[in-house]
Amino acid sequence: MKENVVIVGQKPTMNYVLACLTLFHQGFSDVVIKARGKAISKAIDVVNIVKEKFIPTAKIKSLELGNERLVTERGDVVNLSTLTIILTKE
Amino acid sequence: MKENVVIVGQKPTMNYVLACLTLFHQGFSDVVIKARGKAISKAIDVVNIVKEKFIPTAKIKSLELGNERLVTERGDVVNLSTLTIILTKE
Repeated sequence: MKENVVIVGQKPTMNYVLACLTLFHQGFSDVVIKARGKAISKAIDVVNIVKEKFIPTAKIKSLELGNERLVTERGDVVNLSTLTIILTKE
Repeated sequence: MKENVVIVGQKPTMNYVLACLTLFHQGFSDVVIKARGKAISKAIDVVNIVKEKFIPTAKIKSLELGNERLVTERGDVVNLSTLTIILTKE
């Protein structure tokens, strides 16, 4: 996995905001934000907070929806939506 | 509000899938799917199910993120992320 990827999961939103800011401050011009399932809403919150409160020049470079098929421990097949956002600082 | 808009909220995912299919069958070539906050993940599920299971020719024409500021009954200000997807059938 590349170093400029933030995977949004169960932690508080601000943890991921901080992760994005850290990557930008490390010198990356792009940060990739990934989420799936219910974390997708949180990923979009992260993007909005980074843009509105911290880096007003940040822009969404790409936004992609996907679909992942998972097999649970019980053997059930579950479809999960995925979201990948590339945020860029100019 | 235009007639080809589906607003995704608290109901089961399949309700909104059905709403989209109904609009397409009524002759609309575009269906606008809107959601905010936690319903955003569900909206993306709706889009994936419509595309994968029902209308393979459906494509995402546009995908827009936004931000809405709400004032609650208590007077608190809450930021809500919003998502607008336009799904088109060719």
